[in-house]
Amino acid sequence: MRRLQDHLHDCSINTATLGFQAPIAEVIDAVARAGFGRIAPWRREVEGGDVNAVAKHIRDAGLSLSGYCRSTYIPANSEAEFRANVEANKRALEDAAVLGAPCFVMVVGGLPSGSKDLNAAREQVKEATAELAAFSKPLGVKIALEPLHPVYAAERSCLTLLSEALDWCDEIEGAVAEPQVGVAIDCYHVWWDPNLGVEIARAGKAQRILAFHVCDWLVPTEDVLNDRGMMGDGVIDVRAIRAAVEDEGYRGAVEVEIFSARNWWKRQMDETLKVCRERFVTAT
Amino acid sequence: MRRLQDHLHDCSINTATLGFQAPIAEVIDAVARAGFGRIAPWRREVEGGDVNAVAKHIRDAGLSLSGYCRSTYIPANSEAEFRANVEANKRALEDAAVLGAPCFVMVVGGLPSGSKDLNAAREQVKEATAELAAFSKPLGVKIALEPLHPVYAAERSCLTLLSEALDWCDEIEGAVAEPQVGVAIDCYHVWWDPNLGVEIARAGKAQRILAFHVCDWLVPTEDVLNDRGMMGDGVIDVRAIRAAVEDEGYRGAVEVEIFSARNWWKRQMDETLKVCRERFVTAT
Repeated sequence: MRRLQDHLHDCSINTATLGFQAPIAEVIDAVARAGFGRIAPWRREVEGGDVNAVAKHIRDAGLSLSGYCRSTYIPANSEAEFRANVEANKRALEDAAVLGAPCFVMVVGGLPSGSKDLNAAREQVKEATAELAAFSKPLGVKIALEPLHPVYAAERSCLTLLSEALDWCDEIEGAVAEPQVGVAIDCYHVWWDPNLGVEIARAGKAQRILAFHVCDWLVPTEDVLNDRGMMGDGVIDVRAIRAAVEDEGYRGAVEVEIFSARNWWKRQMDETLKVCRERFVTAT
Repeated sequence: MRRLQDHLHDCSINTATLGFQAPIAEVIDAVARAGFGRIAPWRREVEGGDVNAVAKHIRDAGLSLSGYCRSTYIPANSEAEFRANVEANKRALEDAAVLGAPCFVMVVGGLPSGSKDLNAAREQVKEATAELAAFSKPLGVKIALEPLHPVYAAERSCLTLLSEALDWCDEIEGAVAEPQVGVAIDCYHVWWDPNLGVEIARAGKAQRILAFHVCDWLVPTEDVLNDRGMMGDGVIDVRAIRAAVEDEGYRGAVEVEIFSARNWWKRQMDETLKVCRERFVTAT
């Protein structure tokens, strides 16, 4: 298991952690100044601007991406809407390639409006993911399916279990030496899963762990969307999960992603980054 | 699949649905007056009172129990606390027998204060469940393990997946013709699970479905604890889940359990019961 104090170049800041308070250029500079080597920007910070300039700014700051966030939701009530969602993701994948993202994080979407059919939503996501994997391979960007906590099944992700994400990977491309489709494992979403250890081992052996995200589950949680905690402030044994992931050979980035409307988003970026750095060492 | 309009005697009101507005005697009368045949009372309505009198009132009203709610949480930081939790459940099981409950619903508890060790909590629950199953068998009350939605893993239930509940049943008593330990399947907790169909079939074939609870998942959900919906008001395909359960031979009660601080708990009992009756027919 890596000592993260010796691996700050592998530690990544997902920019959502900083609450989107400042333009991406300032965020990049703050992350680099704090000593980290990786960053995960969001499309809202990039799209509509000069993607090449953002890419250059990131490189010039000495940073590289750990991933690019995130997909347009896939499930739709019509073929036209479904196609539009897939195409929006293709445009984002082109940007991901310009930015040098190793993977594109797919939060797949929940039930389309009015639907109660989770299985139909899942079938749409699998179909779209297969198409996006084929599209993104020549771009050098992998597809990271992120199973979300089941509390988001209705509105954000019909994909909830790590086991299911891995089943989809197998279904989409079979067992291959260098997978194009893999998973983003986020502690917040999977910490409760009794099969977590087994599925991390499965993902690792199949070379499918493309991203590893950390934060904490607060007790009590006031809002399941935007009340996530800094590592060490909650009940997730983040270090044990990181150990399991690294035992399987994962040496990619450790990315902190915290949605925290009532706490961290209200603080100065530099302060949050300082605490992230401490907690990478003491509680991750 | 049963037509519930012809099976109101199999339809049960979990008294939490009515918000504990009135003494249990009035609740029993209201449930019977509304035409239902089953009721699931809570310990808070029974303990400290005359249990025999409550049992007689239920019988005299023409009702029987679908279950008795619910266990004292098991996981503890000390052996003494663990023992106290087990003993509290034994007293509740004795009351369950007096009340004629077919099963005692176990909401098993989450992490003890200060702990991050879900697996240790799970081991405590398995140990306690085995002891409670042995204790309750001569009483004629079965143990219904209720996997809760993973959003409650920290504070209410380290048991989240139906598959895990069934694994525990097998571990505790093996495959037996008439199990003493089974599961309570609540749509709210399991609707999102991609393995739901497979696990319902497994539970049914093993004769382990001891209770079936219905309500709905609202979009948006304002509070994951107390903002549950009436069947038909949310995104759960309740009828499909009931069909799966009944396809496996389940002919027990269909119990409505709705925690709804902002809506149903503010209404008169008779009104809520009237809507329950309608929705049993139209949306369950």
